[in-house]
Amino acid sequence: MDKSPLSANFKLGFLGAGQLARMSGLQAFRYGIQVGVFSDRDENEPVQFMTPHSFTGSYDSVDDLTNFAKTCDVLTLENEFIDSAVLRKAQEQSGTNIFPSPDSFAKIENKFIEKRTFEGAGISVTPYKLVKTVTDLKGFGQNYGWPYVLKSSKGGYDGYGNETVKDIEEAKKAFNELGGHDNRDIVAEAFVDFTHELAVQVARNETGHVVYPCCETVQENHICVGVKSPAPVPQSIQKEAQKIAVKATEAIDGKGIYAYEFFLTKDGDLLLNESAPRPHNSGHYTIEGCITSQFENHVRAVMGLPLGSTELRASAVAMTNLLGTDERNAKVDNALMALSESDGHLHVYGKLDSRVGRKMGHYTLLGQTVNETYTQATELTDSIRI
Amino acid sequence: MDKSPLSANFKLGFLGAGQLARMSGLQAFRYGIQVGVFSDRDENEPVQFMTPHSFTGSYDSVDDLTNFAKTCDVLTLENEFIDSAVLRKAQEQSGTNIFPSPDSFAKIENKFIEKRTFEGAGISVTPYKLVKTVTDLKGFGQNYGWPYVLKSSKGGYDGYGNETVKDIEEAKKAFNELGGHDNRDIVAEAFVDFTHELAVQVARNETGHVVYPCCETVQENHICVGVKSPAPVPQSIQKEAQKIAVKATEAIDGKGIYAYEFFLTKDGDLLLNESAPRPHNSGHYTIEGCITSQFENHVRAVMGLPLGSTELRASAVAMTNLLGTDERNAKVDNALMALSESDGHLHVYGKLDSRVGRKMGHYTLLGQTVNETYTQATELTDSIRI
Repeated sequence: MDKSPLSANFKLGFLGAGQLARMSGLQAFRYGIQVGVFSDRDENEPVQFMTPHSFTGSYDSVDDLTNFAKTCDVLTLENEFIDSAVLRKAQEQSGTNIFPSPDSFAKIENKFIEKRTFEGAGISVTPYKLVKTVTDLKGFGQNYGWPYVLKSSKGGYDGYGNETVKDIEEAKKAFNELGGHDNRDIVAEAFVDFTHELAVQVARNETGHVVYPCCETVQENHICVGVKSPAPVPQSIQKEAQKIAVKATEAIDGKGIYAYEFFLTKDGDLLLNESAPRPHNSGHYTIEGCITSQFENHVRAVMGLPLGSTELRASAVAMTNLLGTDERNAKVDNALMALSESDGHLHVYGKLDSRVGRKMGHYTLLGQTVNETYTQATELTDSIRI
Repeated sequence: MDKSPLSANFKLGFLGAGQLARMSGLQAFRYGIQVGVFSDRDENEPVQFMTPHSFTGSYDSVDDLTNFAKTCDVLTLENEFIDSAVLRKAQEQSGTNIFPSPDSFAKIENKFIEKRTFEGAGISVTPYKLVKTVTDLKGFGQNYGWPYVLKSSKGGYDGYGNETVKDIEEAKKAFNELGGHDNRDIVAEAFVDFTHELAVQVARNETGHVVYPCCETVQENHICVGVKSPAPVPQSIQKEAQKIAVKATEAIDGKGIYAYEFFLTKDGDLLLNESAPRPHNSGHYTIEGCITSQFENHVRAVMGLPLGSTELRASAVAMTNLLGTDERNAKVDNALMALSESDGHLHVYGKLDSRVGRKMGHYTLLGQTVNETYTQATELTDSIRI
């Protein structure tokens, strides 16, 4: 790199223009650099309001991505919707580095390949199988029991692209709906009887790696509604999850910030469920909750800077997602209680339209004990209309 | 206000496009609102890189300001260069509220009026006099001793607009250089023999007020090079400074964030030296050092939201300014040590050009004891080239 990464004419480009890029972009601005954003949508996306360097194009177009990449000094991802082969070509044609690298991304971009990658690194994953036929669908149920979960191998998020099926008829229907006949890989996963869903973020680059505390993600209808950090599970489990997360990041030679989601089974085993090569909802609490946020370490990691401390700022930190409550132009009502709480921190993502269940913002509360802090955070935000 | 302040189409406008507006703007983005910026410069100013809503015009032009104001829902200041009468007209013609209000700003925009205002509120200020003639210049020296300080009543910052004069010849020269014959009010101020320069920030609006810890500003050649918080002076002094700062804000019916700078004299008296109706260099440490930063409380104050806790996050917080070391395209070298320190936080303002002594960024370090933390912060940043 012939340009100093900490210079006013250095531009960090984001592929994706949602809240993850927005929060990373705010950190980029704190380092005095410029932010470019590439979106595939016509509407005004959150990041497009905070930079004059906004591009619209198709994630499938090497040319679009190359043209954008040429205006930036380094690119990073905010989602997994782009194909690694397209990324690789855009990187070659533009000469602009992309982190996570296309090669690293290729190891996890498809849920089937992801599981093989981590299994190959000696990490326990949810039992899974690539299913292609009715016989496969039946066989998986016979081997691992009903219900089980069918997942589209690419493009899923927040429960989209996932179906829980309880018999062969549901399995066939879900297989079709998920695009199984449309040349899309469908993965069957055993239904895991878990006590907690846990998450760990890892930042890594050529200077080393840092690992965040193991937190619990609280899910309702496949959507994360909140996070407790540290997770209310034994320290030995927390440490084991952190160890696996680091191992997984090394297995894919990751450069950037990564999130790993685990099931803690009734038997006390940790199964790696999903990974994300980007900032993750489970790490939003780190903005105020840790000395260095996942967004700052993301920016540091892709810029090749040393990584910052992941230590918690309080004994307990809770985060609640502010999911859309109404269909309307986005605005926040009834937030006075949340704003008035001493160590409570409101974040709103700047989306123009509220939709029921859409991630519109989040709230972070620092406290003493994690379950009580989480309860308090939900009480402070329950009445918010957004 | 018929629009919810916490909505994606609410726009907060900044008059000024430097680092103060930039850091306030980053907070505005955290609340999901939009940022507009008005600058009187052609070059690319720090905030212009982080919003598509950028306007250029003259601070003297009611029309320019009115046109900008019409695109915003509320305006705020980042400097004191605009005339309150111009602001008042722009507010009337646009229908957009400006905070601090033109009426409140009028009470402090001119150094002579400012001192009268605070003196009238029973606050001790540095002995001062409006000087118009050679007789005035001589008389002030005779009454308060040489050297003393001559200040332009408007437009000064970072030592610009100030001259220390040690005899009548220097006084006459400085009077002319500061614009005394050019219809500009010149104020003479007694030279104060102080042990510490202290500062306190206050945020205030219709919901109440909050006051920040009393900090010490470390000055070299009239430029703030660093801050220690809390100030290493007795608690009784700290509390007295906080009390005066609140009183001063009430005296001008302030809405927004205000900074007050004090001299602590050898006799232990507090004299109010200067005030600023905006975020201030003395409060940059609050970004990581306090639960709610001066920038967040600035945004909250002008939006009419409840104000956040000003509590320190650590027993001691130190800030060092990163002043330009070279004339060049702005970039940061030798920052690895600063970036690697656990609770150290680097901020770069995104100015395109470095100039020697120009404020290019700052560094905040959280620690245990204030003098040691400050020494450590200076050691970590001494070698930075910027």
